Amino acid sequence: MNANNDRYVVGVDFGTLSGRAVVVRVSDGAEVGTAVHEYAHRVIEERLPGSAVRLGPDWALQSPEDWRQVLRVAVPGAVAAAGISPSKVIGLGTDFTACTVLPATADGTPLCEVDGLAERPHAWPKLWKHHAAQPHADRINAVAARRKETWLSRYGGKISAEWAFAKGLQVLEEDPEVYGRAERWIEAADWIVWQLTGVETRNVCAAGYKAIHTGGGYPSAEFLAELNPAFTGFTAKLGQELSPLGGLAGRLDARAAAWTGLPEGIAISVGNVDAHVTAAAADAVRPGQMVAIMGTSTCHIMPSDALAEVPGMCGVVRDGIVPGLWGYEAGQSGVGDIFGWFVETSVPGSYEREAERRGLTVHEHLTELAAAQRVGQHGLVALDWHNGNRSVLVDHDLSAVIVGQTLATRPEDTYRALIEATAFGARVIVETFEDSGVPVTEFVAAGGLIKNRFLMQVYADVLRRPISVIGSEQGCALGSAIHAAVAAGAYPDITAASAAMGRRAEAVHLPDAGRADAYDRLYADYRRLHDHFADGEMLHGLRALRNEASTSKEQGGRVTGLPRVMGAAG
Amino acid sequence: MNANNDRYVVGVDFGTLSGRAVVVRVSDGAEVGTAVHEYAHRVIEERLPGSAVRLGPDWALQSPEDWRQVLRVAVPGAVAAAGISPSKVIGLGTDFTACTVLPATADGTPLCEVDGLAERPHAWPKLWKHHAAQPHADRINAVAARRKETWLSRYGGKISAEWAFAKGLQVLEEDPEVYGRAERWIEAADWIVWQLTGVETRNVCAAGYKAIHTGGGYPSAEFLAELNPAFTGFTAKLGQELSPLGGLAGRLDARAAAWTGLPEGIAISVGNVDAHVTAAAADAVRPGQMVAIMGTSTCHIMPSDALAEVPGMCGVVRDGIVPGLWGYEAGQSGVGDIFGWFVETSVPGSYEREAERRGLTVHEHLTELAAAQRVGQHGLVALDWHNGNRSVLVDHDLSAVIVGQTLATRPEDTYRALIEATAFGARVIVETFEDSGVPVTEFVAAGGLIKNRFLMQVYADVLRRPISVIGSEQGCALGSAIHAAVAAGAYPDITAASAAMGRRAEAVHLPDAGRADAYDRLYADYRRLHDHFADGEMLHGLRALRNEASTSKEQGGRVTGLPRVMGAAG
Repeated sequence: MNANNDRYVVGVDFGTLSGRAVVVRVSDGAEVGTAVHEYAHRVIEERLPGSAVRLGPDWALQSPEDWRQVLRVAVPGAVAAAGISPSKVIGLGTDFTACTVLPATADGTPLCEVDGLAERPHAWPKLWKHHAAQPHADRINAVAARRKETWLSRYGGKISAEWAFAKGLQVLEEDPEVYGRAERWIEAADWIVWQLTGVETRNVCAAGYKAIHTGGGYPSAEFLAELNPAFTGFTAKLGQELSPLGGLAGRLDARAAAWTGLPEGIAISVGNVDAHVTAAAADAVRPGQMVAIMGTSTCHIMPSDALAEVPGMCGVVRDGIVPGLWGYEAGQSGVGDIFGWFVETSVPGSYEREAERRGLTVHEHLTELAAAQRVGQHGLVALDWHNGNRSVLVDHDLSAVIVGQTLATRPEDTYRALIEATAFGARVIVETFEDSGVPVTEFVAAGGLIKNRFLMQVYADVLRRPISVIGSEQGCALGSAIHAAVAAGAYPDITAASAAMGRRAEAVHLPDAGRADAYDRLYADYRRLHDHFADGEMLHGLRALRNEASTSKEQGGRVTGLPRVMGAAG
Repeated sequence: MNANNDRYVVGVDFGTLSGRAVVVRVSDGAEVGTAVHEYAHRVIEERLPGSAVRLGPDWALQSPEDWRQVLRVAVPGAVAAAGISPSKVIGLGTDFTACTVLPATADGTPLCEVDGLAERPHAWPKLWKHHAAQPHADRINAVAARRKETWLSRYGGKISAEWAFAKGLQVLEEDPEVYGRAERWIEAADWIVWQLTGVETRNVCAAGYKAIHTGGGYPSAEFLAELNPAFTGFTAKLGQELSPLGGLAGRLDARAAAWTGLPEGIAISVGNVDAHVTAAAADAVRPGQMVAIMGTSTCHIMPSDALAEVPGMCGVVRDGIVPGLWGYEAGQSGVGDIFGWFVETSVPGSYEREAERRGLTVHEHLTELAAAQRVGQHGLVALDWHNGNRSVLVDHDLSAVIVGQTLATRPEDTYRALIEATAFGARVIVETFEDSGVPVTEFVAAGGLIKNRFLMQVYADVLRRPISVIGSEQGCALGSAIHAAVAAGAYPDITAASAAMGRRAEAVHLPDAGRADAYDRLYADYRRLHDHFADGEMLHGLRALRNEASTSKEQGGRVTGLPRVMGAAG
């Protein structure tokens, strides 16, 4: 391994708002240089760049040129920051948000860059959080359930509006010409590798989790024909041969070498999904190691040698995290987002001023106040469904519930209850895996929330297990670099590379038996609430009434013509 | 009636923090002068006045001298403000918070004014909201239920810790010497009349609602002996002969004439409870006229010619509002208090600043934003149990529930949902009366919340009925003045006096059919939540855990020794 002390790989993480490049030493994974480049167009939600064309509600697009710019700016920036010679770089790996997907020609040109198509919204890449294909996803799920498609259970019983088939069907039905001109329908994760190598590859991970590639193929032509006869040929636009994770996709071509300042011909690893590649960075690629990437939402990634149908999981994909194992994914659709919402909408000015006086953020101030309480002292229990529930209910039309407020309830009480609710949500997922015959042997936390030690302690107490913590603040990019090292031949496989280059601190947060016992009582309440509201009978009704009221042209609802009203204080 | 154009009565309302005197013209009820006197000691909650003696949790006492001072200051102040000659005043009436109750000697001297007892907490008057007798109330209810006492159903199945027997039992068991020296256990409503006239009377209203006087007597000696053998003689300290509302209690004696500056010998009416006397002020003393006094909490008062057992009512008392009818009382334990709690704890600084910029209170600002929505647009439904539930569940250990929050929920959404929740709570009460065979023919709003027109409109829409509004801002004092006019012989009875002197605007707020239909859907959800959480299984458990955690000496709960924690934002 001695040679690896002076050899480096570059990991590039394409996020929602920016791309980050990290230069990593091959021998031990040391991160020696980093650069971040913000996308010029960030998320395109209102109108197309340089155009008057407006987008509909729930649209979210991105610009391929913004992604290329990360290669031109962030990669050389990270190398410069590392202070190393580019000649010492032996490989580059990438990961991407997913399902972020675009229509392209047979040579990989994005349709939005084809003459005459720049003003067609459907010619642009659809970002993962483009949610305008929900009606198409609903149809896909309904038809699949009616036909008893065997692949449906591999996705927890429901596929998402974010995924490749729903987005593709939306293009077909809303802009058939663009659909027809799309010779490729390709994950950005694979498209960026094509840009680097000049060679089209498709990674097994994105195909498996986002494009319903399971059991050796895609959904049948008969199934697609039931959705829309013109949709039958959709799978021809997808990858036909899939490439394994950690594999060599190709070599840096002359054009991309010029962009990046890296040596032409170095190894480029097969594309990756950001959450999944974090497992390598945490050296958590063995069966039963569940990595929770905890940020605005939480994604749970776990390899296993057991295949099972876990209710409400996002997906199980052979070789989806590392070759040779089943890769499971689950998710909580709102975590940090809930705390952010609470601080933005529900904390009085007096708390904002007190936090400022103490030199803390409002989050830090509330966390300190909450941490001073005993378990259950706030008298509350909440359901963390403010952004719906991904696992295990797979229902984005659910909404939150909070129980137990009194006239004595303070903001820190509710804040703590919301943190606990997300921990209970995580416990439901862990228990569902174990109850389905997929053991969870270690819970590894990654993502932005690991900085909150109180929150981590709540998770340890609620889960009644030690929590390990990833040893990198840029887990995605480090994971991509590890994959690059494998592709470059520095290690025989991802497991070996992760052991050398990845890192986590084991059992950082230990459960306290007394607190855990008290949490068991609150968790029993959480489960009862969860099961009571899971059918959506009340929550869907409230949402339906909300949607009717929001879109109604009738004046049946609003109280109008009021003179200046008086306050409601008695 | 011509003579009444130049004759006046004085109504004096003894509230929680102050006493208010109003001079009222006998012919038409015109309020011609008002004065308010704040009690020097307000509510005594921490320690006895001028003493080191500390009070326990949930104690609330008052000073009798503060009440006399209202007679000395506010009454002449109101007469002066009216610009009339005191010689034109023909009567004075009073009303009081209840059950506010004190131990006294046989000549009416409060025990706290007896030599050597000033430092004994139990010698002082207990204010209505003294809640330290809850354990005694619990025992009274348990024993009554076991013995199947027939009076229990007259009080909705449970008597309150605020009432005369619970407070008296607490005195006996915590300070038997004070109990023994109390020759009288008397409502402040009756004690103040004694001070004015020199004659002891007991009003039928307070005795009926607060001292379990029903079916011609008090609970039996056998029952009291089961609570405590020494409690058997308790009823001897209470009123043996009860005086009717609107009756002549006596005449202003020389001492009280000197205090008030009013002519000696004028009529003093029988004592009254503040909520109940409001019915006269609103001219709503006929069967089926429900007066809701809406403030921090809401009290519902309704005469009826039908006697029924209404689940969860506070009480039904013969002649309890006007002679000749059954008087019903019900209540919502939190209304304006809930909106106040929300504004204090749950509205961000940005809203506070915007309200200030617009020259509005936060309540007004939120009300305007909420009023601009259509019914159901917020997607929420809440239970208004932040201060427990009086009617119809009679359970102060319940707590609130809110359902439907998402990341898009704004403060005005929740504020509106809370207003609606209190309206749904009122609808449950109205429906329970009607379902029990006690028709509600008119809903009359009184109290501070009537100023909020949006809130009133919500109530009209939710109740699907017109809302009448009292025509006075000092309904209690006006009602007392009306009783004084009856006692003085200016009118034959309360009904006639109310018709001439009381006032309300009928059908001020009319329901809108479209909004009412939408509210029916939300109300169905409210009822389902109400019934689901009514058993208290989860809510009592949360409260029990809260109480354990709050009082625990164990270090089983708190997370200690944390270094500066980081915020929870992802």
